[in-house]
Amino acid sequence: MKKIRAAIVGYGNIGRYTLEALEESEDFEIAGVVRRNAGEPQPAELANYKVVKNISELKDVNVAILATPTRSVEKFAKEILAMGINTVDSFDIHTKIVDLRRTLDAVARANNAVSVISAGWDPGSDSIVRSLMQSLAPKGISYTNFGPGRSMGHSVAVRAIEGVRDGLSMTIPLGTGIHRRMVYVELEDGADFKKVEAAIKADPYFVNDETHVTQVPSVKELNDVGHGVNLVRKGVSGRTHNQLFEFDMKINNPALTAQVLVNVARASMKQKPGAYTMIEIPVIDMLYGDKEELIAHLV
Amino acid sequence: MKKIRAAIVGYGNIGRYTLEALEESEDFEIAGVVRRNAGEPQPAELANYKVVKNISELKDVNVAILATPTRSVEKFAKEILAMGINTVDSFDIHTKIVDLRRTLDAVARANNAVSVISAGWDPGSDSIVRSLMQSLAPKGISYTNFGPGRSMGHSVAVRAIEGVRDGLSMTIPLGTGIHRRMVYVELEDGADFKKVEAAIKADPYFVNDETHVTQVPSVKELNDVGHGVNLVRKGVSGRTHNQLFEFDMKINNPALTAQVLVNVARASMKQKPGAYTMIEIPVIDMLYGDKEELIAHLV
Repeated sequence: MKKIRAAIVGYGNIGRYTLEALEESEDFEIAGVVRRNAGEPQPAELANYKVVKNISELKDVNVAILATPTRSVEKFAKEILAMGINTVDSFDIHTKIVDLRRTLDAVARANNAVSVISAGWDPGSDSIVRSLMQSLAPKGISYTNFGPGRSMGHSVAVRAIEGVRDGLSMTIPLGTGIHRRMVYVELEDGADFKKVEAAIKADPYFVNDETHVTQVPSVKELNDVGHGVNLVRKGVSGRTHNQLFEFDMKINNPALTAQVLVNVARASMKQKPGAYTMIEIPVIDMLYGDKEELIAHLV
Repeated sequence: MKKIRAAIVGYGNIGRYTLEALEESEDFEIAGVVRRNAGEPQPAELANYKVVKNISELKDVNVAILATPTRSVEKFAKEILAMGINTVDSFDIHTKIVDLRRTLDAVARANNAVSVISAGWDPGSDSIVRSLMQSLAPKGISYTNFGPGRSMGHSVAVRAIEGVRDGLSMTIPLGTGIHRRMVYVELEDGADFKKVEAAIKADPYFVNDETHVTQVPSVKELNDVGHGVNLVRKGVSGRTHNQLFEFDMKINNPALTAQVLVNVARASMKQKPGAYTMIEIPVIDMLYGDKEELIAHLV
């Protein structure tokens, strides 16, 4: 069997977990890792891999897994798709997904490549569950309840407050899409906790939510990449009301994101040129194995 | 917009709920209902529809929704696909799905039609969730826990026991794929309950499960088409263990089956000729609406 040759672009948290997920997937071969500091000493786990500054230095890459910050996804995806290489990413700004899909769809088609975008767990695998629930009860209300787990965006907002040395915002699900914010701050010397607390509660990221601020000696010691989600829908199938659906998970966040990226990298090999979100791809394409065996086992 | 013209083939429990689901779907038009007793007086809700003995008597049918018993699905699907009309069914004998798919795939391709098979809730929408969970944690164990709800197969087995006038078997989930069977029997005059109870417990359908048999004056009075399922997976994403996933639903069984059939009837219009299970179809194809609007709303 010819293996799928994947490159990892970016080697932060998600990149490291992507390496593990690729190493555990027998249908993949790691073409190499692309990172800015390619000339410098590399971590031990990369000893057997090519580490380069530009993906063009790697040979026969089928798919590039973008483990870069969300804001640089578009730039990297355009460059790499233009080389005729598939890309996958976990772009997570919900309001800009349609635009990104449109932009990358044109580039992908022009270069006979495939791009799978917004493929993490939300957006990503949750999107499949949300869409499925919507289809099962076309009328009704769905809620996505996040957590308990860290919110990157909210944590960044906390760190921008004057007097905060380090900060962390945990998202706590209260149900019906309502979330509590548990904020932990490590203060700079001489900073006034009461002022910091008031500034956080007045920040646009927090002003509409129940927010509790706690001072701690070290934010780093609270580090835990666990996360969770609870998706619920109550609705109507045909004319029958009170159909109840619920999806729950408790997961290591970067490990799941990396696994999804590997899954859609696999699926990218089976799609026609263009850009796709996960709800546009058959679930079976994300799995490794013989089609009929998968059907016999899973349907 | 040109509506999808659907025929309902068979008008039992599922057929009636399918009529409701089609009437609630603005992208569908009901071409008619196919039933054996077409010449006889029909129920009020069919007053405005053509009721015929053979689908060939209906005009411009795009898709036939097979609401027939599972064992006659293959025969009807072959006949109707041969006319170049798409078919969808909720064939539910798990061990025979691969064979049915192969058979119908050949007929569908030869006649430029699409067949979506085993599209109910299990097999069906559960299959999508099971496959998704499998992809998110490729190593690990999944369990499908059914109920509480009636088991058709087990109820038929109860009714075949000597001395049973009417019988019902409820499936109660105990977790990890283990089920309790709560059996309710209405006895024929002079039948011996102890003998009936022993015969049920010795039946191959029940011999391996915890089974409780209760005598009731009327099985009909226990009638409730509610059902449920709990799908769980605990497994490994990449090299990260203890990833936890769970899907739960409590639903009206025929109403959900009918809604799924309508959803895949819609999706059948967007696939290339051939036969498909639900895990081979993008979830977005099961939804009505503008593609970009659905992506903006659900991804």
